[in-house]
Amino acid sequence: MTSVGVGLIGCGTVGTGVVELLATNAETIARKSGLRLELRHICEKNRAVWDRVKASPGTFTDDLDVILRDPGTTIAIELVGGTTVAGEIVRKCLAAGKDVVTANKALLAVRGREIFSAARAAGRCVSFEASVGGGIPVIAALREGLIANRIDAVFGIVNGTCNYILSEMAARDRAYADVLADAQRLGYAEPDPSFDVKGTDTAHKLAILAAIAFQADIDLGSIAVEGIEAIDRMDLRAARELGYVCKLLAIGEREDDGLSLRVHPAFIPQAHPLAGVSGPFNAISIYGNAVGHTLFYGRGAGPKPTASAILADVIAVATGNARRVFPRLDTLLKGRGL
Amino acid sequence: MTSVGVGLIGCGTVGTGVVELLATNAETIARKSGLRLELRHICEKNRAVWDRVKASPGTFTDDLDVILRDPGTTIAIELVGGTTVAGEIVRKCLAAGKDVVTANKALLAVRGREIFSAARAAGRCVSFEASVGGGIPVIAALREGLIANRIDAVFGIVNGTCNYILSEMAARDRAYADVLADAQRLGYAEPDPSFDVKGTDTAHKLAILAAIAFQADIDLGSIAVEGIEAIDRMDLRAARELGYVCKLLAIGEREDDGLSLRVHPAFIPQAHPLAGVSGPFNAISIYGNAVGHTLFYGRGAGPKPTASAILADVIAVATGNARRVFPRLDTLLKGRGL
Repeated sequence: MTSVGVGLIGCGTVGTGVVELLATNAETIARKSGLRLELRHICEKNRAVWDRVKASPGTFTDDLDVILRDPGTTIAIELVGGTTVAGEIVRKCLAAGKDVVTANKALLAVRGREIFSAARAAGRCVSFEASVGGGIPVIAALREGLIANRIDAVFGIVNGTCNYILSEMAARDRAYADVLADAQRLGYAEPDPSFDVKGTDTAHKLAILAAIAFQADIDLGSIAVEGIEAIDRMDLRAARELGYVCKLLAIGEREDDGLSLRVHPAFIPQAHPLAGVSGPFNAISIYGNAVGHTLFYGRGAGPKPTASAILADVIAVATGNARRVFPRLDTLLKGRGL
Repeated sequence: MTSVGVGLIGCGTVGTGVVELLATNAETIARKSGLRLELRHICEKNRAVWDRVKASPGTFTDDLDVILRDPGTTIAIELVGGTTVAGEIVRKCLAAGKDVVTANKALLAVRGREIFSAARAAGRCVSFEASVGGGIPVIAALREGLIANRIDAVFGIVNGTCNYILSEMAARDRAYADVLADAQRLGYAEPDPSFDVKGTDTAHKLAILAAIAFQADIDLGSIAVEGIEAIDRMDLRAARELGYVCKLLAIGEREDDGLSLRVHPAFIPQAHPLAGVSGPFNAISIYGNAVGHTLFYGRGAGPKPTASAILADVIAVATGNARRVFPRLDTLLKGRGL
């Protein structure tokens, strides 16, 4: 059985999920993929984590160079988050000849051109299934399963925090501020929730989906973004009375004169499959010119669903498939040549 | 750009869809995959089709040997259907060194062991995304997107004919026999509908899904099958009054003492995402031990959605990914070694 050396960078909630899933499902993964995934290093600055997370002795380090210099580590999983430090880490990993798997939608949406250009220069790949839709294999569907289609539209519910808030407001006729406060207490929303509730995170995910769906160079500034802060419970009552459900949607459509990309709350007919997507679930509708309407549903966040997508990427990279599906994967967010 | 020679065997409704999609989306496919798919031969005994379907002169033949002997044709698409002639065709293609793409669920469910054994002997692969769920990339999801999961359950609506009949009976409070007669007139049901309405087709698809999900050797005889013939409109009224929708489900579950595999009509709570799947649509729920509940939805039949899946397979085979994902793909339905 082939062994694949993996280095994990950033061991927060999702990173811990990856460590645990590698342990729990090692046999399943080996049986299905023919690969033994060996977690050789975990780079984590916060030493409190070293004691909390169960890993083989000597796995933890606070020195990224340990991963960069280890020829046995061929795949780096970046879970640091954010666009600054994470960007430097990804560049260093690529320059050191590592393939990179990341869940970092902000990094790809904001600095994707630079990251994929660095990947191309290094002859490496950057895989990012976990960056949109958590455990839902939607990136793979767009790139591979629906590859024979011209994609005409992609839209969906891709932010669990907003979906939780809107679902809860509608189900219990509660005010936005109250539900947000609860969500913060429960850990579903950040202490500063603006990244989610203003629609920024949804826009990042739309940029990634649209880049793949439309093979286009997506400028974040071209996405019109409206969040959920102005949603009132009266809006949700009105929606229900009219036979609709209110959801925050990421919407990308091919139009005669280009692309329409936008994030905003929308009324969805109760009979539409997206209407039933509540709480922490995400769902993405994709329209292809051959397949028609398809929809992909599942948990959009959380350590285990996200780890599921990350390890699928690791396996695809290790078997060479991540590279082979798209010979020009590295130009993904550049739009040229694809 | 790499050119890939394709031979099509059987040019009925779905085959015609493949021919048309190859023409319509040639540029899209080339841009996305880096491959030029060249339809070199169409083997079709019925010469009336030769005039009806638009293809380059000399493409049509009624002699399978033309495909078998052409070294430039590396991938054969089998769309003859049935288990006898189709089985011989697939064996001959494999023996001639062709990779095979098929939508033939009956063939795989009934003679899968033999087919995959022949593929292994020939060092070729057999890909079959289109055999379940039409255009929905559910086989890829089970094999690749969710590869890091132990799959605990897979169930869904995978027969469009039954789903159309049940949806129509429920929506208009009509009797089974009346709706079936309409479905036959509209071409949604065969003149002899038993293959669909008795649940056989659903059982075939369940065998394929379960083989991959549970990496098990599935014996068709181990699936308990009940169709929709005994469903009365009173059943559907009762379902609605109780807050349910009645659907024919394919169900595979991992249990402590083995697998439970069954096909039968079931009451689904109206809030479950499967409840909204009506008419020609299919949907498959998959539960993984990391990802939790995922659902994949789309058109389960029809020439264009099916062609979408077939061409995705052709591209995956041509890039080598179909082989690389599962080094032991050929033992898929054998369960050993996977």
